Amino acid sequence: MSDASLLETFPNPKPERDYVIEHTFPEFTSVCPKTGQPDFATVVISYVAEEACLELKGLKLYLNGYRNEGVFYEKVTNLILDDLVAAARPRWMRVVTRWGPRGGFTSEIKAENGEAPAGVPGNAGL
Amino acid sequence: MSDASLLETFPNPKPERDYVIEHTFPEFTSVCPKTGQPDFATVVISYVAEEACLELKGLKLYLNGYRNEGVFYEKVTNLILDDLVAAARPRWMRVVTRWGPRGGFTSEIKAENGEAPAGVPGNAGL
Amino acid sequence: MSDASLLETFPNPKPERDYVIEHTFPEFTSVCPKTGQPDFATVVISYVAEEACLELKGLKLYLNGYRNEGVFYEKVTNLILDDLVAAARPRWMRVVTRWGPRGGFTSEIKAENGEAPAGVPGNAGL
Amino acid sequence: MSDASLLETFPNPKPERDYVIEHTFPEFTSVCPKTGQPDFATVVISYVAEEACLELKGLKLYLNGYRNEGVFYEKVTNLILDDLVAAARPRWMRVVTRWGPRGGFTSEIKAENGEAPAGVPGNAGL
Amino acid sequence: MSDASLLETFPNPKPERDYVIEHTFPEFTSVCPKTGQPDFATVVISYVAEEACLELKGLKLYLNGYRNEGVFYEKVTNLILDDLVAAARPRWMRVVTRWGPRGGFTSEIKAENGEAPAGVPGNAGL
Amino acid sequence: MSDASLLETFPNPKPERDYVIEHTFPEFTSVCPKTGQPDFATVVISYVAEEACLELKGLKLYLNGYRNEGVFYEKVTNLILDDLVAAARPRWMRVVTRWGPRGGFTSEIKAENGEAPAGVPGNAGL
Amino acid sequence: MSDASLLETFPNPKPERDYVIEHTFPEFTSVCPKTGQPDFATVVISYVAEEACLELKGLKLYLNGYRNEGVFYEKVTNLILDDLVAAARPRWMRVVTRWGPRGGFTSEIKAENGEAPAGVPGNAGL
Amino acid sequence: MSDASLLETFPNPKPERDYVIEHTFPEFTSVCPKTGQPDFATVVISYVAEEACLELKGLKLYLNGYRNEGVFYEKVTNLILDDLVAAARPRWMRVVTRWGPRGGFTSEIKAENGEAPAGVPGNAGL
Amino acid sequence: MSDASLLETFPNPKPERDYVIEHTFPEFTSVCPKTGQPDFATVVISYVAEEACLELKGLKLYLNGYRNEGVFYEKVTNLILDDLVAAARPRWMRVVTRWGPRGGFTSEIKAENGEAPAGVPGNAGL
Amino acid sequence: MSDASLLETFPNPKPERDYVIEHTFPEFTSVCPKTGQPDFATVVISYVAEEACLELKGLKLYLNGYRNEGVFYEKVTNLILDDLVAAARPRWMRVVTRWGPRGGFTSEIKAENGEAPAGVPGNAGL
Repeated sequence: MSDASLLETFPNPKPERDYVIEHTFPEFTSVCPKTGQPDFATVVISYVAEEACLELKGLKLYLNGYRNEGVFYEKVTNLILDDLVAAARPRWMRVVTRWGPRGGFTSEIKAENGEAPAGVPGNAGL
Repeated sequence: MSDASLLETFPNPKPERDYVIEHTFPEFTSVCPKTGQPDFATVVISYVAEEACLELKGLKLYLNGYRNEGVFYEKVTNLILDDLVAAARPRWMRVVTRWGPRGGFTSEIKAENGEAPAGVPGNAGL
Repeated sequence: MSDASLLETFPNPKPERDYVIEHTFPEFTSVCPKTGQPDFATVVISYVAEEACLELKGLKLYLNGYRNEGVFYEKVTNLILDDLVAAARPRWMRVVTRWGPRGGFTSEIKAENGEAPAGVPGNAGL
Repeated sequence: MSDASLLETFPNPKPERDYVIEHTFPEFTSVCPKTGQPDFATVVISYVAEEACLELKGLKLYLNGYRNEGVFYEKVTNLILDDLVAAARPRWMRVVTRWGPRGGFTSEIKAENGEAPAGVPGNAGL
Repeated sequence: MSDASLLETFPNPKPERDYVIEHTFPEFTSVCPKTGQPDFATVVISYVAEEACLELKGLKLYLNGYRNEGVFYEKVTNLILDDLVAAARPRWMRVVTRWGPRGGFTSEIKAENGEAPAGVPGNAGL
Repeated sequence: MSDASLLETFPNPKPERDYVIEHTFPEFTSVCPKTGQPDFATVVISYVAEEACLELKGLKLYLNGYRNEGVFYEKVTNLILDDLVAAARPRWMRVVTRWGPRGGFTSEIKAENGEAPAGVPGNAGL
Repeated sequence: MSDASLLETFPNPKPERDYVIEHTFPEFTSVCPKTGQPDFATVVISYVAEEACLELKGLKLYLNGYRNEGVFYEKVTNLILDDLVAAARPRWMRVVTRWGPRGGFTSEIKAENGEAPAGVPGNAGL
Repeated sequence: MSDASLLETFPNPKPERDYVIEHTFPEFTSVCPKTGQPDFATVVISYVAEEACLELKGLKLYLNGYRNEGVFYEKVTNLILDDLVAAARPRWMRVVTRWGPRGGFTSEIKAENGEAPAGVPGNAGL
Repeated sequence: MSDASLLETFPNPKPERDYVIEHTFPEFTSVCPKTGQPDFATVVISYVAEEACLELKGLKLYLNGYRNEGVFYEKVTNLILDDLVAAARPRWMRVVTRWGPRGGFTSEIKAENGEAPAGVPGNAGL
Repeated sequence: MSDASLLETFPNPKPERDYVIEHTFPEFTSVCPKTGQPDFATVVISYVAEEACLELKGLKLYLNGYRNEGVFYEKVTNLILDDLVAAARPRWMRVVTRWGPRGGFTSEIKAENGEAPAGVPGNAGL
């Protein structure tokens, strides 16, 4: 089961600077809550850290925790965003999930928390 | 026959957040009301949910309901938009249909309901 | 000969909504008025309907009517736009013709009637 | 020799409308005035007509007139623009020439006459 | 170990002009501080020099100094930016690191120091 | 050795018009002042002429003059810009140099002199 | 329901020559016999005619007859091949079906009847 | 109407050598004998000449003669091959026609006359 | 006028070895003998030298000699092959000409003299 | 000046195995012996070693030795092959040089020494 306590952070090495961190995880899998069939997605996490950065090992374990969990696309996207925001308390964060063909559909869910600081480089093209 | 009662929704897991949901369905087919010949389209549905999200299984059954229905491109695009809006009452929704070659023409119809909330990410490039 | 009376319309199924209809026809052919040699073009028709939508069968017959007509690129582009505007009275319409190599030239003509309604989706990228 | 009197025009079939005409000619050739060696270019002519449109046969003969003429890239680009403006008196015109490798250089010259009318479609992407 | 004293500069040959210098280094490697496994990144350094330019030989030795150092992506990106800023005191600098797949993730970190001068060419598309 | 006296100009054939001239030279080579190893670059020169245009033969000889000269990327870019500005006194000029892999780095230097006239076509995309 | 009697043929206009006819139909749809859900395929039919050629209108109606028929990929591929062979009695025929994603799988079935005549052009690359 | 007497030949300038001539004509159009609707194809003609070569002007007029003729794909392909063989009596000839979407099908017909001489270059990849 | 005496050769630096020389010339132009209009082609010359190699300056002047000559595609291809064979007496030579759109046709002519030596590298893919 | 004594080798670590070594050098430059202008090429060296392998530092210095040497494409290609064969005595070696545009031509020279051992992988596609 997914477990937000698996998330670990380390101190932002440069809190006095707004800079963008982006992790792309093409190996996310969960289970359809209606059919029990596996779903596959690419998860893209972008954020500007405040005090804490997300450690990748814990982030991976956390995301892998959804492997056998039945959950809708919309819920898991917001859940990930909420859990990561709770864990790292970033100045700004966005989570995008892109789902492979399921029942003929491909899907993409985009959710965001906070507003990207004005001086953040490369944010326009997000 | 198409049947809007097939549409099912589940509670928006995060109604306090504006976020974008997009489903792409490349396997839509209906019938030309003039010639009785089958038409084929890709349907792209994008929306920001209010209280309810569209469940994919029902959405698929609903879209498959047009399989043997004679209907013009323009009508079916607006019909889908209207039925989905009635079922899910989203803050904003857009339906785009892209039709394969018919009588030498390829066609694309784009219709929208409501205005996308200002803070919605990724909406500019739509 | 080209004959605007071949154009047929059907009632716009959603006149209370501004939405974009686009038809692409890669099989247009007419005749050069100077040399008598055939010309070939792709015609792209985009519009926002008012009361009426253009029916594809009639549109095809109308466009095929130019098959043996001697007419300049510039004239036929404006003629198509004028005939379609007269037949369907759209809120906005644009016709683009792209012509294959003739005498070493490839050509493109773009003409527009009316102004696209502000709320029309996807119009920016036209 | 290049001869602007070869240019022929025909009446703009729709002078009351601002619309864009674009001709691309990948077979332009002239001669380097210093070395006597042939140069090769693609010429792109874009304009909004006032009273007159450029006829393609004459335009081709005019452009072919440079075949054995020794002339710098910069001069021929402005010459073509000036001759076409004098012949057709367009509301706006632009000539771009793109030259193949010569002495290790590839070159592009862009010149414009007048200002494109505000309502001209597709002009932004020029 | 990484050693900022390896960085060498030479006098900016044109301090009275704002111009952009960009170095791309696809061969950066460091070590994950948690697993001890090697990480690989492309580092892109862009700046407008004040008095000093970064010499490439020293820059390479400096970047190679991270080869056996255990350091988080976020830290090394800011460290590089801080060290280069300290060494060259540029008017503006940006460091982007793009990391290859690690534990299923690819990552990108973007950090910037100072504001790019208004007249800097080509900076918009950065 | 590089020799600005090799640069030749000819009178701008259309000084009353602002138009853009762009030459791309993929065969630039010089020598690293530290290692004595050859460097290779593509040089892109864009300008709006005032009284004089740069003649290509002389421009090539001038650029080839750097073949065995030891010079930093930053210096040679500004040197070329300064020499060309001195020779042709353009209304605006920009020089971009893009360098092949050296010590693992690829590099790009962009420098500009003067401001591009407002009406210059195609300048936005530079 | 699929109905082989819809197939029409016309006399091979050149029976004394072995030549290849190939029709590609990207709009095939049938129904999964287990789930009742629609399947979508591209069908490619290649043959060398003996006495009869397949008429396209009838071929389309025949293929459209599978629209609401529940049938496995393997069966429908062989059924089409058998029906077409029975209708046209070609010297050689091959049917390939390529199926879109269903339950995560894409599939391709290739079946052939008879042996392609030795002198048939373009057969090697099949 | 198509008229083989429009075909003109000129003496093969090198009859003692086997060499390959290939003409590609993307602007072929004829009419469907069943529906009266226009069909569009690319015609590729490859041959090794004996005494005569096909002159392009006549070949174009001949192909344009099918513009308003109702004829099946299979027949017109063999007809073109037979007429060209009768006119030029080549050592070997092949005609390929590739047809745009009609009733959902795209089609390709390949017919050949004679055997390509062994020493003919570039024939393997045909 | 084309003049084979412009062709110059220099001694094959390695006559005891069979090796392949290939020159590609995208700037060939001649004149249509029927219409007087210019034709444009890419010429590819491949050969295995015996005693002599073709010098590029002379080869260019020779090819440029066709600039104002009226000549059919087939003749000029064989003429070039014959003139080059006469000038350089290679063990094997092939000339391919690829012609831009003329009257709707693009054309390719391939002619060969002699047989490529068995041990020649890279000859299979020619 | 080019100097074969710069070439260094080291013992083939696996002489009992036939395996392929390939080095690609995109920064070769020499001088045209007729015009004195610089030439640029990519050099690809492939070989199966016997006793010795070519050391890269020496290979680079050797190739850079041609920088100011006037030499024909054909000669330099064979010279490189001969010098490398003399230095490393490989079982088989091939040198390919690909030259950038010069006088309108791009050129490629391919020379080979010895026969590639039968079991060498990847040799077919060379």
